[in-house]
Amino acid sequence: MPRPASRGNVDPFIVMQVMSAAAEREAAGGDVLHLEVGQPSTPAPKGVLDAARAALDTDKIGYTLALGMPALRERISAHYRDWYGVDVPIERIAVTTGSSSGFTLAFLSAFEHGARVALASPGYPAYRNILKALGVEVVDLLTEAADRFQPTVARLDKAGPLDGVIVASPSNPTGTMLGEDGMTAITEWCRSNDVRMISDEIYHGINFGQRSVSALESDPNALVINSFSKYFSMTGWRIGWMVVPPDLIGPVERLASNFFISAPTLSQFAATAAFDCIEEAQENVARYARNREILLNDLPAAGLDDLAPADGAFYIYANVAKYTNDSVEFCRRILAETGIACTPGIDFDPSRGHASIRFSFAGSSDDMAEACKRLKAWL
Amino acid sequence: MPRPASRGNVDPFIVMQVMSAAAEREAAGGDVLHLEVGQPSTPAPKGVLDAARAALDTDKIGYTLALGMPALRERISAHYRDWYGVDVPIERIAVTTGSSSGFTLAFLSAFEHGARVALASPGYPAYRNILKALGVEVVDLLTEAADRFQPTVARLDKAGPLDGVIVASPSNPTGTMLGEDGMTAITEWCRSNDVRMISDEIYHGINFGQRSVSALESDPNALVINSFSKYFSMTGWRIGWMVVPPDLIGPVERLASNFFISAPTLSQFAATAAFDCIEEAQENVARYARNREILLNDLPAAGLDDLAPADGAFYIYANVAKYTNDSVEFCRRILAETGIACTPGIDFDPSRGHASIRFSFAGSSDDMAEACKRLKAWL
Repeated sequence: MPRPASRGNVDPFIVMQVMSAAAEREAAGGDVLHLEVGQPSTPAPKGVLDAARAALDTDKIGYTLALGMPALRERISAHYRDWYGVDVPIERIAVTTGSSSGFTLAFLSAFEHGARVALASPGYPAYRNILKALGVEVVDLLTEAADRFQPTVARLDKAGPLDGVIVASPSNPTGTMLGEDGMTAITEWCRSNDVRMISDEIYHGINFGQRSVSALESDPNALVINSFSKYFSMTGWRIGWMVVPPDLIGPVERLASNFFISAPTLSQFAATAAFDCIEEAQENVARYARNREILLNDLPAAGLDDLAPADGAFYIYANVAKYTNDSVEFCRRILAETGIACTPGIDFDPSRGHASIRFSFAGSSDDMAEACKRLKAWL
Repeated sequence: MPRPASRGNVDPFIVMQVMSAAAEREAAGGDVLHLEVGQPSTPAPKGVLDAARAALDTDKIGYTLALGMPALRERISAHYRDWYGVDVPIERIAVTTGSSSGFTLAFLSAFEHGARVALASPGYPAYRNILKALGVEVVDLLTEAADRFQPTVARLDKAGPLDGVIVASPSNPTGTMLGEDGMTAITEWCRSNDVRMISDEIYHGINFGQRSVSALESDPNALVINSFSKYFSMTGWRIGWMVVPPDLIGPVERLASNFFISAPTLSQFAATAAFDCIEEAQENVARYARNREILLNDLPAAGLDDLAPADGAFYIYANVAKYTNDSVEFCRRILAETGIACTPGIDFDPSRGHASIRFSFAGSSDDMAEACKRLKAWL
């Protein structure tokens, strides 16, 4: 028998294993409070659903151009003027199959096999795992609470030769953000060191105080990844976009046409209506803000008092070192004994996440309050 | 500035450039007969559309498990019993984002960087381009009309050391098929030479005489790629599946959760209804059969008499050596001067396709007849 390829031997995305365990518990009649998965508990906005229904009635739902429907790309371009005051021509916008395909296209077009790319740890596990499967060396920036778990120029200076840097603000799993100064420092460091800057901005719009800063504000050539999944509650629609630097437009279009043909067409029609649904999206953000308050108040009362400052997104990253040195087993026990699904830190920080867990507060406020009550009793 | 990566410098999928040119012509008020793109001119079956509408009304359209909704995987498993009489447990079925993501998952899980994989030329260009971008060496099997443009054991014996073989039956762009003997010869050759067998079966069900043979009939460990795009008219839905050999299930699940999270959820709901829509799908096949008759009768009358035997799929691959040695320019002129969009052979056969073109007959019968009329006048 031929053997499996070594590059397929990436780590699993552990949160999806927690989801499976939670689904099994529910199938067996158990109740589950879902604080594991990073997705809104709400459906897409009404206007999005209506646009999908209209497309089902009138369109053949065939392939689109590789970079997406022009009407959607126009709408995304307008979004950059509206939100950030930056001008992004539609030629630079590629519609993608969620942010996931954006990462594959970004990494393949920007980084050679054998390149070195730095990213914050803790961070989104799929960055690391996709990069590894594509033969890119991952350079972990072991960020600290003192830096709001974000990369700094000081850390980049010590990272050795780099081909790329990935930043995520707001971050998954910590929710922390880079302000204008922090973002500008990194884009300038990348520019002066000839390093490709990739900015994951998929939690933009979900923030609790300061606004989300785009890398495009300080570097018009940054490569930006975004998605309709989080702010617009459209995870299962698998629809997102990239802002592509001019030198990568050709490669990204050619790679996209071969690797993906085009993003899901019904989702493209639906997403075109999303930017007209800001009011509904902001109602969700208001719910996340209430949920965040509940967790920031009640988790310390339950015994979890070392929490990352959750500036945005819908996550609380908690240090659980005083309870365990095995976050996988800890999460397994929490699910089994309290019905709360949450995600072990090693999904986000392979070297230190054994002592952390992530709570997602994208669910209902009642679930948040109930989860804190159960945790207090259990801990 | 950092430089683009060499691996992003793949060939474009040329048919998508023809689509762009055709769309420009239409936007400028010109008429176009679409014989370029490999997609049905029909929408998804009614039952599929109804299932999508029901899901929009009742479901949140969130992520699914990485390998897909269990109900859909069950339905696909049943399909193998119904159509081929083979038993495929649902554990071996992975729901994918069209066949495209199936190829990425197959190639990453099965082939190391630097592996050598053989495939028929002419063949689907994305195989070649995805493989190259993933650092796999493509070994072209320069197939001939005498072998129905399909790989043979004799050709594989001469291909040098191989890690994998990709077969496609019915083939794009030739429409030719491997019968039971041809398929079995290749699966046995792969087994005895320790070579991974990947069988692209996305045109199964669209055949005009003999039935489509699955690699699973002669090799239960073959890796099979399939899709709802063609037989079920669901191209833009981006939904397909793989049958994964037991040793690759773990790697495929881990890669899928990182690279894709999950396939589009609405499309998964919709596809679950597809297998109950065989009658409507067969009506489309009957239309393709009529279209094929029109082209096989009228193209020779128009001057194109060297055609591949179109056993299945919805393509006619025509030798145009007596008219041109530059199929790209030839297709450009046909579009400009007759309004017929068709695809240059170099998309499918880089070394010999300069003298071939592909017609897709997935459109309406009226368009086929009109195209032949115009070609006859033009040639």
